Amino acid sequence: MIQSKLTLVGAGPGDAELITLKGIKALKSADVVLYDALANDSLLEYAPEKAVKVNVGKRKGKHSCKQEEINQLIVGYALQYGHVVRLKGGDPFVFGRGFEEIEWAKSYGIATDVIPGVSSAIGVPGMLQIPVTHREIARSFWVLTGHTLDGKLPNDIKIAAQSSATIVILMGMSKLDEICGIFASLNKENLPVAIIQEGTTDKQKMVFGTISTIVSQTQIANVSNPAIIIIGEVVSLHPEYLQTWMTELQLSAYQ
Amino acid sequence: MIQSKLTLVGAGPGDAELITLKGIKALKSADVVLYDALANDSLLEYAPEKAVKVNVGKRKGKHSCKQEEINQLIVGYALQYGHVVRLKGGDPFVFGRGFEEIEWAKSYGIATDVIPGVSSAIGVPGMLQIPVTHREIARSFWVLTGHTLDGKLPNDIKIAAQSSATIVILMGMSKLDEICGIFASLNKENLPVAIIQEGTTDKQKMVFGTISTIVSQTQIANVSNPAIIIIGEVVSLHPEYLQTWMTELQLSAYQ
Repeated sequence: MIQSKLTLVGAGPGDAELITLKGIKALKSADVVLYDALANDSLLEYAPEKAVKVNVGKRKGKHSCKQEEINQLIVGYALQYGHVVRLKGGDPFVFGRGFEEIEWAKSYGIATDVIPGVSSAIGVPGMLQIPVTHREIARSFWVLTGHTLDGKLPNDIKIAAQSSATIVILMGMSKLDEICGIFASLNKENLPVAIIQEGTTDKQKMVFGTISTIVSQTQIANVSNPAIIIIGEVVSLHPEYLQTWMTELQLSAYQ
Repeated sequence: MIQSKLTLVGAGPGDAELITLKGIKALKSADVVLYDALANDSLLEYAPEKAVKVNVGKRKGKHSCKQEEINQLIVGYALQYGHVVRLKGGDPFVFGRGFEEIEWAKSYGIATDVIPGVSSAIGVPGMLQIPVTHREIARSFWVLTGHTLDGKLPNDIKIAAQSSATIVILMGMSKLDEICGIFASLNKENLPVAIIQEGTTDKQKMVFGTISTIVSQTQIANVSNPAIIIIGEVVSLHPEYLQTWMTELQLSAYQ
């Protein structure tokens, strides 16, 4: 008798040691692991050698499974093999379509479990000692995506720009110019911005600037997806921000 | 020669298995652990038996250390013993005054490190299969605190109430009435709300309702701090929400 089960596991932001103990235990009991491009591949080593491991990751330019295909794979594997672990980058419910996978499995009577993970929205700036909240600087944080169903920037970014929250945007690099425009229209040109590509991994790259300089800084530094955008005064707490700021000040003095 | 170091470690939302592997490794190399009331005590077992373990936790009605005292303990212990692990509930930078502790240690030349944790803001609803984001229902989430420096409700909650973000409020139970008033003034009386006390632990209690019913539901269910408040359509995805809603519908039919 096969005991079918789906466990969504948050793999954390990239550093393999940022997975939870509970996530590791789930992997150890997996019959099948369906993993994202954003999850750290070395985590697969926790799964039994005989477990089926399938990359269903979505990444630009490479073949990736459609969500409907992933849903079907989850159900198919769960019914045939038993315990399916769906390993997702960051936390399974932060822009991951995790709930759709849970719903799909439930509709086939498959038991489901969710193991939260460290979201890159908090963990990536955190490892760099940029706090998303700070008692005197930012009393809240707002996590948004730049990637919407209709390809337009979500309206909530306009509301977010009016607040004093730290703004964290995932999958927003292709809209960076437009996002900065919204903040600039509210006279927030000097608000600090950090962009971190592949945070917490060996490939990590980062760039600092302000609403008015970050687009050109990003081009110079050649920072691109997968990256997170952090907008807010807390960014200025990072020593590299000050360095960038000083360099710009000196450059403008020569002009 | 003592190597002084401070490592902030996020203990996760309560379930002892929601700590990261990196957090466990830090605890294993600790000479001193300063831990919060919100962190799971069983995590202390990862620290060496000879390590000094000090509860600096803040909880209503009990003795707790002031932040200045904690900062001094961190520095004092780091200089005298070596590696101080500061074990904090959830993530160290989500309303934890973690950055102040880092700054204080740095000012004494002490090396610092931050190990992110699963924030209760995402992890508590996540374990209950309430997704903070959902492709068709909520494209962003905003995490706020109800607890401010001057005792007033932060202005950002008024901006948040206008958005379509999932709103997660930590330490907001004493302001629940006032928070619901803000949403009600925007004709959002029927917006679903969930309150989860001590989420992911054995003591977990939860209650569901809407902006117009949650205050009385909370009193009936006797749910109180430490709790998180989740406001948004995603709450309606939880089966207990539907149950509460049906019960109220039937009660009102009898009246």
